[in-house]
Amino acid sequence: MEIHEELKDFIEESSEQEKEALKLFLNSLKTKREKSNLTHIASLLQFETNQIDDRTLEITMPNSLILDNSIGIVHGGLTATLLDTALGTLASRVPGNKKGAVTVELKVDFLSPGVGEKFICHAQVVHNGRQLVRMEGKVRNEKGALIASATGTFFKLPDEK
Amino acid sequence: MEIHEELKDFIEESSEQEKEALKLFLNSLKTKREKSNLTHIASLLQFETNQIDDRTLEITMPNSLILDNSIGIVHGGLTATLLDTALGTLASRVPGNKKGAVTVELKVDFLSPGVGEKFICHAQVVHNGRQLVRMEGKVRNEKGALIASATGTFFKLPDEK
Amino acid sequence: MEIHEELKDFIEESSEQEKEALKLFLNSLKTKREKSNLTHIASLLQFETNQIDDRTLEITMPNSLILDNSIGIVHGGLTATLLDTALGTLASRVPGNKKGAVTVELKVDFLSPGVGEKFICHAQVVHNGRQLVRMEGKVRNEKGALIASATGTFFKLPDEK
Amino acid sequence: MEIHEELKDFIEESSEQEKEALKLFLNSLKTKREKSNLTHIASLLQFETNQIDDRTLEITMPNSLILDNSIGIVHGGLTATLLDTALGTLASRVPGNKKGAVTVELKVDFLSPGVGEKFICHAQVVHNGRQLVRMEGKVRNEKGALIASATGTFFKLPDEK
Repeated sequence: MEIHEELKDFIEESSEQEKEALKLFLNSLKTKREKSNLTHIASLLQFETNQIDDRTLEITMPNSLILDNSIGIVHGGLTATLLDTALGTLASRVPGNKKGAVTVELKVDFLSPGVGEKFICHAQVVHNGRQLVRMEGKVRNEKGALIASATGTFFKLPDEK
Repeated sequence: MEIHEELKDFIEESSEQEKEALKLFLNSLKTKREKSNLTHIASLLQFETNQIDDRTLEITMPNSLILDNSIGIVHGGLTATLLDTALGTLASRVPGNKKGAVTVELKVDFLSPGVGEKFICHAQVVHNGRQLVRMEGKVRNEKGALIASATGTFFKLPDEK
Repeated sequence: MEIHEELKDFIEESSEQEKEALKLFLNSLKTKREKSNLTHIASLLQFETNQIDDRTLEITMPNSLILDNSIGIVHGGLTATLLDTALGTLASRVPGNKKGAVTVELKVDFLSPGVGEKFICHAQVVHNGRQLVRMEGKVRNEKGALIASATGTFFKLPDEK
Repeated sequence: MEIHEELKDFIEESSEQEKEALKLFLNSLKTKREKSNLTHIASLLQFETNQIDDRTLEITMPNSLILDNSIGIVHGGLTATLLDTALGTLASRVPGNKKGAVTVELKVDFLSPGVGEKFICHAQVVHNGRQLVRMEGKVRNEKGALIASATGTFFKLPDEK
């Protein structure tokens, strides 16, 4: 069966929540079509990135039904995804780093339940070493409540000779 | 515009990769329709859970285009989502725990690039305390290569009186 | 053989560095005699504690021969001891906490070599929850160089009924 | 005043516990006199190292009055010192590593109160990468009770050309 037929059948029996999810999935594909270097997960989670200066970057993630864990708050793994993306993106852009950076380790502290309309991750460079970049980040909701805090170590990919 | 019309228009211009993504999204909604307590993200990442005994649980995540980070390997945040889910699910099920458990902190070590056909997360209880459950987990691919390792602390939700 | 005879014999053959170590050990015992609730290790490491406000505390540790690791910089374990003490002392003193607090987990990032005349650990409360206190701390030398950074989780000891 | 006179005066007024501490300090200096590459802290904590194979090493630390924290159990910082030493020593000795290794980060989970006659730290290599060595360790007492668990990342010092 073709994908559009299968979708048509599914939509006919779909609940409001399923329609909302489909809409979200479709929008994420449209966004990714425009910004081809975006990852699927960044598009799905509707990340908006804002580099503030050389040592500071923010990513905003609006709440959506895809974020829910089994008890109706943001899934810790997706908070970790927001943090890993923000810290990693900034680590890849530190001055002198040409080839990007990969995550060595990430430690996330979950401080209060992930509730709110949107979640803003504020990432900062703690130490820009020769091969390692040490980062920290905080996630707050739109009211400023501190939801999670993280530290991460990133390895600079070597410059090819 | 109705969702099915919008989807029809999108599909007409879609690439093979976009069709694959749509198929994946649709399947995740179908799976979730059958298992209503599944989260959207667990359904999207196609988690399959297998509790081995009281202190051991495995979740398998097949590779898919949704897992890719910007350099073609599994996004660290999704490896963290797999780990948080496996460790948290097992922590919620330790003997004597009636109300579930929430993540206090999660520390993920990324050991080698996340490549492979599927990723198996093996979670274990390290210490089942009165209020805290301490966990550890390893993620391997189908060939046994060790991709990530994690420790986590979970707080048992108090039993209502 | 009596301890004073044994010490006398040892001193007769002792190097300058050994005399310096003995002097340091003796001074730590004298300090502890005056402040009986001080631990041996806090006395040996010559900790000086300064509570700044409800959410901030500093401990200063002067450099000494006892701090050296095998490559002539401060032993990471002693930097961790400084951090654990500062974070734990402050966690024990958060408003409403009557019985003290124990360390659940401590994560230390070593950022630059531990060199300098003294090391100042600045501890802060990140989140004062009902049962857990979440802390962070930074260690700098007297010139302000950032040597280590840490986060820690502490469990409030329950109030006896 | 000369160090031996000062010590004599101190001993005359000393309690049994102070004599025990002095004896411990003196013994640590004697041990260090014999093994000059030992650090002061390793000598004070009476570390005994036993390499089991290329990927496994144990350090035993007997209990002593110097280990006590303010509530009569082993100070978390000294458990961290034991772990950092064991993990770091083994990381320095992995095959192909010629120049030693420094601690990048150490995460310690405190699982149960540090009580017992001695504490055995069992360290293992998790992943021996090109520049980073990833380690884990467990601390148990002589009865096998699990007291602490840790993971650590170490950076191999570059070979001079």
